[in-house]
Amino acid sequence: MYQTLKQRVLDANLLLPHFGLVTFTWGNASEIDRQRGVLAIKPSGVEYDQMKAEDIVVLDLDGKVIEGDLNPSSDTPTHLELYRRFPALGGIVHTHSRHATIWAQAGKDLPALGTTHADYFYGDIPCTRPLSDNEINQHYEENSGRVIEETFNRRGIDPVAVPGVLLYGHAPFTWGKDAQEAVHNAVVLEEVAAMALATRSLNTHIHLQHALSDKHYQRKHGNNAYYGQR
Amino acid sequence: MYQTLKQRVLDANLLLPHFGLVTFTWGNASEIDRQRGVLAIKPSGVEYDQMKAEDIVVLDLDGKVIEGDLNPSSDTPTHLELYRRFPALGGIVHTHSRHATIWAQAGKDLPALGTTHADYFYGDIPCTRPLSDNEINQHYEENSGRVIEETFNRRGIDPVAVPGVLLYGHAPFTWGKDAQEAVHNAVVLEEVAAMALATRSLNTHIHLQHALSDKHYQRKHGNNAYYGQR
Amino acid sequence: MYQTLKQRVLDANLLLPHFGLVTFTWGNASEIDRQRGVLAIKPSGVEYDQMKAEDIVVLDLDGKVIEGDLNPSSDTPTHLELYRRFPALGGIVHTHSRHATIWAQAGKDLPALGTTHADYFYGDIPCTRPLSDNEINQHYEENSGRVIEETFNRRGIDPVAVPGVLLYGHAPFTWGKDAQEAVHNAVVLEEVAAMALATRSLNTHIHLQHALSDKHYQRKHGNNAYYGQR
Amino acid sequence: MYQTLKQRVLDANLLLPHFGLVTFTWGNASEIDRQRGVLAIKPSGVEYDQMKAEDIVVLDLDGKVIEGDLNPSSDTPTHLELYRRFPALGGIVHTHSRHATIWAQAGKDLPALGTTHADYFYGDIPCTRPLSDNEINQHYEENSGRVIEETFNRRGIDPVAVPGVLLYGHAPFTWGKDAQEAVHNAVVLEEVAAMALATRSLNTHIHLQHALSDKHYQRKHGNNAYYGQR
Repeated sequence: MYQTLKQRVLDANLLLPHFGLVTFTWGNASEIDRQRGVLAIKPSGVEYDQMKAEDIVVLDLDGKVIEGDLNPSSDTPTHLELYRRFPALGGIVHTHSRHATIWAQAGKDLPALGTTHADYFYGDIPCTRPLSDNEINQHYEENSGRVIEETFNRRGIDPVAVPGVLLYGHAPFTWGKDAQEAVHNAVVLEEVAAMALATRSLNTHIHLQHALSDKHYQRKHGNNAYYGQR
Repeated sequence: MYQTLKQRVLDANLLLPHFGLVTFTWGNASEIDRQRGVLAIKPSGVEYDQMKAEDIVVLDLDGKVIEGDLNPSSDTPTHLELYRRFPALGGIVHTHSRHATIWAQAGKDLPALGTTHADYFYGDIPCTRPLSDNEINQHYEENSGRVIEETFNRRGIDPVAVPGVLLYGHAPFTWGKDAQEAVHNAVVLEEVAAMALATRSLNTHIHLQHALSDKHYQRKHGNNAYYGQR
Repeated sequence: MYQTLKQRVLDANLLLPHFGLVTFTWGNASEIDRQRGVLAIKPSGVEYDQMKAEDIVVLDLDGKVIEGDLNPSSDTPTHLELYRRFPALGGIVHTHSRHATIWAQAGKDLPALGTTHADYFYGDIPCTRPLSDNEINQHYEENSGRVIEETFNRRGIDPVAVPGVLLYGHAPFTWGKDAQEAVHNAVVLEEVAAMALATRSLNTHIHLQHALSDKHYQRKHGNNAYYGQR
Repeated sequence: MYQTLKQRVLDANLLLPHFGLVTFTWGNASEIDRQRGVLAIKPSGVEYDQMKAEDIVVLDLDGKVIEGDLNPSSDTPTHLELYRRFPALGGIVHTHSRHATIWAQAGKDLPALGTTHADYFYGDIPCTRPLSDNEINQHYEENSGRVIEETFNRRGIDPVAVPGVLLYGHAPFTWGKDAQEAVHNAVVLEEVAAMALATRSLNTHIHLQHALSDKHYQRKHGNNAYYGQR
């Protein structure tokens, strides 16, 4: 019944090892069909090279499995929270890609240091606050989604303009209009995280000037964008 | 006579170059069959791409070769010591994988800095004390096994919950219920070692909060684990 | 009409992913035919693995498209400025290769630290000054070319002897007698940028002695060069 | 006439890109036949993927070409000096492999920090002093060989026990009983250089204890060696 959606989600998940973003099964991609009120996501702990479209799990927005014989990713409640709280999101990706995870483990925002960053992320990529022990012990995965929304809300960041986050002590989430775009942003995040790490070792205080951030983001994503074949 | 065991040990050894954990012949995997009282291990100094199941050496637990024409790995006495002292171990892997070796050379525990670590290792991964000159000059390989056990014993670390160690000035050992799981843990150790190295360059004092370590380890390995397809 | 030129430019562009210099579509190569007064360049935002010779865009030196149905790279005005201001240039490459970009983001010249650098670049590779907000907001891409020329002019650097630059906050440009040589220099720049980054972590003040820089550059590029098959 | 020797040298040269030690043509391997008084070496500036056995150049020990139509490597005089001054050498390799070159550019000895190093190199790997301007301007390549011998001689290092060196501001040379072993040592040097670089970032003063260096070197290369299949 959800064959197309499941195939799309499978394809997006298979891009994660293709782009070198995952070790073993450490990552997942999902996509939402808001009209039908369903979400499709990778099954938990299944090897990428054995995954088939029928293994993809379809759930309603309360988290009830509608189609699929396997357990959905243990991170499913985080995806659900993000889809509920950020209505613009169509696809979400979670990985433990090395350099983005390093920034999450360091508990630091990933600063915008160059135009590579500005081409996709309009400003720094925030790292959430740590979850409290209570938030970890009860409803951990839901709370992971909530602290992401809290971070964007408190700082006034638009999740469409900054399509990713670092979950404190954990790893990155990225998103987009669909699962493919979320994967794309996960690749970009990993690359700019690697660049920023070494940039900081050469220059501890530099930051991208606002005009350059604005120019690059707008020439690609603004109303008068002139990048690509439009 | 030990065809299945030898094939399993060959397969595990071949995964080491597959996962990029070894240069030349710098690594070895073994597996124990405790019921039959035998151990199978890689031969010493044989190239991975020429290794066949019949090259795998089978020994009894006193280190006597039972089957096989080649010399066993020079690290065999270390494996034997670990199997004797840690009854829960079914497989052991030794590599000189780059980032784990860096921590061993630095003589430092690998700190738990993120959930990637916590998903597999419950707390810091210890680095042993240096061996004394006497311990090096006499029964070096046995003493390498003994100092690992001493490290876990003195610090009260459960080798099942922390399935790996850094041998001071040398390189890592990992283990598991069988050789495949030991390889799996060697891959994880290498990845978290790389992440921790760079995390420390961004943040010199951060450490994973206990509740998060607990949550991630337990959701994957605890009695109420809900990760994967159980 | 420009079939040979377009094929040459396609080939040069395809070398960028081959040498690991680009992620997605983040790079472009161009070549000028000064006799015919035309430039050929990669189309904007087209995937490398789908690019064909007929997708390459041919423009006159005022930037008017002569042949091709696609939009040229958004960086085309920068290429045009460089060809106009540096008459010796036959090919230009722009990438966001990781280590060269790190130096550009750090806003620092890439110092000549070894003979690998000296074999291709005669002295430090300059990083431009930041563009002013006005220069960013109006004619950004042209101004990127102008600030490169200003950098070489003010410091008295010969663009033939130093065939590359770091654009402040952005990424590198390299060039050569044709697009192939510009690609070659982009590979070298990326490698020496990676080496210099780590060299600086071991030794904060060292610089290549002038005599060694001179010797290596001249034995390869001077009048009495004796490197290679001449 | 020297077909076997040329094939051996070709094979050794082709291992350099295979092991990721060279970019473009930045490396060369040679082998000496001391009985016949000849040396075979890679031609200068020829691409590895087009090199054939007949391209390998054979010279006598005065540097006169005996067989081959191409120019020998511009580093040939350095190889010749090393063969003359170190009678135990049968093969020599020069590369600009990234991490070994980083140490050479930093002008620092590569310290023995772990058993990976000790398995092949008995003590620190020296970096030469800088050449004087005169030594660079006159007979540069010969002087590169001389300063290597001077380094080993003054410090009392046995080139058989430490089969490699860092040429100040330039890059590494390694050697062995034949070209294949020289390549093998070049791979090891690159790996231990990478490990040492990061080890130093975690621990600025640690050094491998002498007993461990001795144990590992002797168990592999000593009279009572018990590593491998002897």
